Amino acid sequence: MKLIRFGEPGRELPGVCINDKNYDVSAFVHDYDEKFFAAGGLLELENILERHGNTLPEIPASVRFGAPVARPSKIVCIGLNYADHAKETNANLPPEPVIFLKSTTAICGPFDNVVIPRGSEKTDWEVELAVVIGKKASYVSVEDAMNYVAGYCLHNDVSERAYQLERNGTWDKGKGCDTFAPLGPFLVTKDEIPDIHQVKLWLTVNDTLMQNGTTSNLIFDIPFLISYTSQFMTLLPGDIISTGTPAGVGLGMNPQVYLKPGDIMELGIDGLGVSKQTVVAYAEN
Amino acid sequence: MKLIRFGEPGRELPGVCINDKNYDVSAFVHDYDEKFFAAGGLLELENILERHGNTLPEIPASVRFGAPVARPSKIVCIGLNYADHAKETNANLPPEPVIFLKSTTAICGPFDNVVIPRGSEKTDWEVELAVVIGKKASYVSVEDAMNYVAGYCLHNDVSERAYQLERNGTWDKGKGCDTFAPLGPFLVTKDEIPDIHQVKLWLTVNDTLMQNGTTSNLIFDIPFLISYTSQFMTLLPGDIISTGTPAGVGLGMNPQVYLKPGDIMELGIDGLGVSKQTVVAYAEN
Repeated sequence: MKLIRFGEPGRELPGVCINDKNYDVSAFVHDYDEKFFAAGGLLELENILERHGNTLPEIPASVRFGAPVARPSKIVCIGLNYADHAKETNANLPPEPVIFLKSTTAICGPFDNVVIPRGSEKTDWEVELAVVIGKKASYVSVEDAMNYVAGYCLHNDVSERAYQLERNGTWDKGKGCDTFAPLGPFLVTKDEIPDIHQVKLWLTVNDTLMQNGTTSNLIFDIPFLISYTSQFMTLLPGDIISTGTPAGVGLGMNPQVYLKPGDIMELGIDGLGVSKQTVVAYAEN
Repeated sequence: MKLIRFGEPGRELPGVCINDKNYDVSAFVHDYDEKFFAAGGLLELENILERHGNTLPEIPASVRFGAPVARPSKIVCIGLNYADHAKETNANLPPEPVIFLKSTTAICGPFDNVVIPRGSEKTDWEVELAVVIGKKASYVSVEDAMNYVAGYCLHNDVSERAYQLERNGTWDKGKGCDTFAPLGPFLVTKDEIPDIHQVKLWLTVNDTLMQNGTTSNLIFDIPFLISYTSQFMTLLPGDIISTGTPAGVGLGMNPQVYLKPGDIMELGIDGLGVSKQTVVAYAEN
């Protein structure tokens, strides 16, 4: 299944995407949130689609899409998880995963504008595969880890490099700005992707291909990341683990290239759809 | 006012503490969560206490106390914000605040057990003053910052030093383990503390005084921290900024001292009450 959320920011309703058309399931489902996943909502949604698939209201094409999951308790990000990206940023290969947290207030829809923070000069892009957790996970083994996955979605882990690296703190400072986490267009359930470690991911800025990678180059694979993270913190249903970005970010270029108002980012992952964000300047209210 | 939450983990109900007695307000208030603070719940709670103060059911003394606020969108922690603590950990004084995020799954009640993570050898204590945000804050000025404060509570920013410093990641890895954020006993509203920058904070382990500081030694004060953090991420009602710990943590001792099962931590801040946690080993289910 492909889960979507649609409507105004903060008031999104749940829907599904079937054969490129979008349908409203809000008559049956409250939201794709922690409670939904914890209560076996995915299985129930399957039943709903079987029983009511023909009668679900279609969503007009003009609608805004939100992130395909409601605000989770946390977004765990994995740093430097592609060797080519570690190299381009002059970082050593990590002996074990780098973990940081991204403020959930950064979440926005897949086609929303990305806002350059006030005074920022180094806003950068990062196409990533995000894993959505399906059930509470603590001290999970690698062997068992995939049983805790609800599905996957496309994530642009937008990053302000000066805040992240030059402002005397952990990376969190440059990762959590508003609109820095466009998610979606949809959450694709695990069963729809034959091999999640063999999908391509790419990102363009103004139609120029910047990132062009494959999850076959992940240093630490998805079962390992889930197991590893769950040794340090409990993952709740709906939580996100973003698995890192391949080479081709602005930070890694010579000279470095950063986003400016009017730039258009387009990104995609095989099977997980395509998202597109226009970069805008911060506007005083 | 002093706000409390009581009952089983995950099912806490809201209450208030008046003259050392605790009263149930769940007939009037759903919870102390983002919606509560955003909707002016503190003002409404004042009215409720005026109208119904005499008839509120008293809570039995045997009840469990939860954290005094519902799970917020984030806990922002400030590192190295007392000069004596920076010195004891051989860190330089920060030119601007160090920010990291603490997984909200770490939150527990003020008298709950603190669990040493599986295999951990360096679990440490940190008494901290936590600020609870009262309304949505983005790009707030220092002058205006205190208008965004709902109140304060006591926080033990429990930390696993090996995970934090020796495991190839940001500090987040050692800060977000389950039970690493005992909060409370109560949230004290801003009006009850005459000068939040003149309160003492202390922590004992097995009755030995380990930390004994005062917020007058904060490197960056509370208005500055709120303003500063709000430049990097939007703070939501109910969000927490934990303002750092004074000297006296186990990491700073020679030789270093870490928590072991059976240890008892007791901590307090003037006007914000006292909490107490027993340290236990991780138990396999």
